[in-house]
Amino acid sequence: MIKVSVMYPNGPDARFDDDYYRERHMPMVKELMGDALMYYTIDRGMAGGAPASNAPYIAMGHLFCDSVDAFQAGFGPHTKEIMGDIPNYTNQTPVVQISQVVVGQA
Amino acid sequence: MIKVSVMYPNGPDARFDDDYYRERHMPMVKELMGDALMYYTIDRGMAGGAPASNAPYIAMGHLFCDSVDAFQAGFGPHTKEIMGDIPNYTNQTPVVQISQVVVGQA
Repeated sequence: MIKVSVMYPNGPDARFDDDYYRERHMPMVKELMGDALMYYTIDRGMAGGAPASNAPYIAMGHLFCDSVDAFQAGFGPHTKEIMGDIPNYTNQTPVVQISQVVVGQA
Repeated sequence: MIKVSVMYPNGPDARFDDDYYRERHMPMVKELMGDALMYYTIDRGMAGGAPASNAPYIAMGHLFCDSVDAFQAGFGPHTKEIMGDIPNYTNQTPVVQISQVVVGQA
């Protein structure tokens, strides 16, 4: 299983509409990707590791797929529509990482 | 539920011992934290979002707990031992984020 992490950097001017992201953007991604998307998760940044520090990322979304090929087949044809929706909920440019899920739950 | 993400930055000189992390470090964290830790996951960086780009993080570990209080109660007393083990598997200083899990699986 692979995981595509879409991480929105935090900062003093960072804006993020949690409701839009949870209720509209991610459900849209799920619908567009169809069976290529196994499931997704959403995190809201609360804090950093040091006392009184801010979370490095204001929010993160993670897409779980069987393989990189499955992700690309499901996401690729809809890239423009999905990316075009980003300004509707944030002014941040996400950092993206594709990871192998080495341990899914232990 | 909250999630503590421990993210190890990638780079040309980044070193990360996957076997040690998976077989020794994370099981040690689980044992030390006891019931305060619900479960953990491990990701291995494969690629970035742009074509032919590297993953921003060489690896990530995520600790899932009921609350920040539960995490701090479980991790706090063992901070020195856990942090002291880091040089045994990497030369990187992790970026740490505490997140609220808004959507656990959808």
